[in-house]
Amino acid sequence: MLSLASAVGGVDIARFFLVVAAILVAAKLLGELAERVGQPAVLGELVAGVVLGGSVLGVVPADGLPSELIHVLAELGVLLLLFEIGLETDLREMFRVGPASLAVALVGVAVPFGLGYAYWAYAPHPSAGSGDLTTAAIFVGATLTATSVGITARVLSDLGRMSTPEARIIIGAAVIDDVIGLVLLSVVSGVAAGAAISVLGVLRTLGVAVGFLGVAVVVGRFLVPRLFDVIVRMRVRYVLLVFAFAFALGLSALASVAGSALIIGAFAAGLILSGTNQFDTIEREVRPLASIFTPIFFVSVGASVDLRLLDPSSPASRGTLLVAAVLTVLAIAGKLAAGWAAPWARVRRLVVGVGMVPRGEVGLIFADIGRRSGVLGEDLFGAILVMVMVTTFVAPPALQALFKPSVEPAP
Amino acid sequence: MLSLASAVGGVDIARFFLVVAAILVAAKLLGELAERVGQPAVLGELVAGVVLGGSVLGVVPADGLPSELIHVLAELGVLLLLFEIGLETDLREMFRVGPASLAVALVGVAVPFGLGYAYWAYAPHPSAGSGDLTTAAIFVGATLTATSVGITARVLSDLGRMSTPEARIIIGAAVIDDVIGLVLLSVVSGVAAGAAISVLGVLRTLGVAVGFLGVAVVVGRFLVPRLFDVIVRMRVRYVLLVFAFAFALGLSALASVAGSALIIGAFAAGLILSGTNQFDTIEREVRPLASIFTPIFFVSVGASVDLRLLDPSSPASRGTLLVAAVLTVLAIAGKLAAGWAAPWARVRRLVVGVGMVPRGEVGLIFADIGRRSGVLGEDLFGAILVMVMVTTFVAPPALQALFKPSVEPAP
Repeated sequence: MLSLASAVGGVDIARFFLVVAAILVAAKLLGELAERVGQPAVLGELVAGVVLGGSVLGVVPADGLPSELIHVLAELGVLLLLFEIGLETDLREMFRVGPASLAVALVGVAVPFGLGYAYWAYAPHPSAGSGDLTTAAIFVGATLTATSVGITARVLSDLGRMSTPEARIIIGAAVIDDVIGLVLLSVVSGVAAGAAISVLGVLRTLGVAVGFLGVAVVVGRFLVPRLFDVIVRMRVRYVLLVFAFAFALGLSALASVAGSALIIGAFAAGLILSGTNQFDTIEREVRPLASIFTPIFFVSVGASVDLRLLDPSSPASRGTLLVAAVLTVLAIAGKLAAGWAAPWARVRRLVVGVGMVPRGEVGLIFADIGRRSGVLGEDLFGAILVMVMVTTFVAPPALQALFKPSVEPAP
Repeated sequence: MLSLASAVGGVDIARFFLVVAAILVAAKLLGELAERVGQPAVLGELVAGVVLGGSVLGVVPADGLPSELIHVLAELGVLLLLFEIGLETDLREMFRVGPASLAVALVGVAVPFGLGYAYWAYAPHPSAGSGDLTTAAIFVGATLTATSVGITARVLSDLGRMSTPEARIIIGAAVIDDVIGLVLLSVVSGVAAGAAISVLGVLRTLGVAVGFLGVAVVVGRFLVPRLFDVIVRMRVRYVLLVFAFAFALGLSALASVAGSALIIGAFAAGLILSGTNQFDTIEREVRPLASIFTPIFFVSVGASVDLRLLDPSSPASRGTLLVAAVLTVLAIAGKLAAGWAAPWARVRRLVVGVGMVPRGEVGLIFADIGRRSGVLGEDLFGAILVMVMVTTFVAPPALQALFKPSVEPAP
């Protein structure tokens, strides 16, 4: 069999499979532990990542081919997660909360960006990068704008709250945030490379992302249900699941090629397939698949955390921790403000605000670009990592606590 | 999200996802076509591989990181296939047919090896490798011994015949063949490297493979059902599936580390879990997962086929085709003989023989080692590839045709 080839050359597949097995077992065990102490399972998966990551056990590979492989499986995990969220999303409800989501997203980008930029450009702070202050301030602002739809969606889904108006607004706003994040990413990458900011370039990136989502959903909702009415008549086994999965992969890739983000394509694929007559079967069969790959994503996010940055006994860490504390306060305050951005929506504003707090991996990516381009020094980079970690770890228990007291959302 | 990283650096994930989508769609479409013309679906998946491979469209990547990634997903596919087969295997029935399987496996290795060795060492043939004749003859013999349990198992499973005595004998014999193949692989690798054959080394490899399977199943059948009775009480979603999958990955890796083959570990994991009280749930949830990854394996086997070797209009191909024709006849005759190896078993001997015919990827791996070490010239390598292709493509329709006339196996 092909497996013999692993003894001959190429990837050391056995070791890689062992790492995946360890990731899955740790994710489920710590997820279970989290649930037993009243926390959402995703928090346990993040902690599993920290434990398996370079700071503690070093089981999750940090570089080379094994790391790339884990990265691909993690991508598959976040793709399946967004696909599942898309499948569960009621498009009509989504449109109803659309204006509220847009308001929340815009305020949730503008306020944190402004706070971060102002802090770094005008307020006193202990550490500085090698680049000029304005560029660094743009980066600090940008890293504060991100929202990790993955974390919040998993928590809401684990709590069985995906159909609440708060959840719809948050998911909508987080997806819009991803579109804005994409635009910001191209801008900050340009800034890091020393380019001037072009309004035309910004508008084009924005247009592509919005256009892709719009065209895909409108065309898809018309054509794809007809296609799946044909596919369902095929005899080969699990044909619906395989075509649905291939559709999600294909639309994700198309989104990326069109200059948008993979996960926007995956979310669009779910939205489109939620309009098919075979929607129930697809959702039921996608779920076990997602349950395997999604934890790999959260574990790999947790594994990117460097615990040494949190050691207060080291003098080098103290300045970093101070900056981190300020950034964290700004990050949380900025996103909480977003909860009050849609005064006409009859929702619990604090829930919406808290739902927007986790920065997750988007913040890490911004920070990484800044570090590699030399705009952010190691200290500032470390502080941003701590901010990303704290916002990511704080939101799940906070959401859980907020949802516990009342079963029905308050008006 | 992490997906943004694909725009920044690392693997081009979008293109990779597009390739996977193309593989899945092609596999299901051609699988469906195969079924509609009365052939097993796996034949369509192999043809899909040929079409997507380097000979025609070149969609399946042939080298670099994308090729390694497809390789890992294909490995996951064959692992899940063997895991599923293990889950469906009745261990008691397996022991009942054990002696018959052993006899079939031994004859199915000895006769093709003898025929292949004798042909290359003593009979006239048009092309020769650069090495000495005896070493080349050992390689020719070894490539003829392989059995692709994957191909046959998929066909039998597609036909709903996995519980027939013929199927049990074939699967048992094919697994034993994998153990023998492993021993042969280490021997021929040594021969290719210029080492003398050591009886002790051969026995040690054999002992490890047999010992691993035995110990794993005996210990596992005792401990694992108790473990899963605890796991089933956990609250996190799809905990049974995730632990079962992690168990299959872990045992596969352990088998490989112990010097045996990944797929033997996967098969053992299935056998062990078939003794748990949660066996039904596990089997039901593993199936959709396997239905995604198994086709990737068959497509990648098909994609390794080079169609130019089959072009009779090219003078260079004619000598190759002649050798290929002889090898194919020997390959089929040798395995058919194995059907008559267990005269005491009340089964349709032709079905057993035909079930052992497909060489699949094991033959390709042997041939590849021979080519890379210079023992096999390009001509002889090409001829072996053709033999592997023909045996792999001929067996599924033959099995299907044999099973069609009578629903019950004849005595």
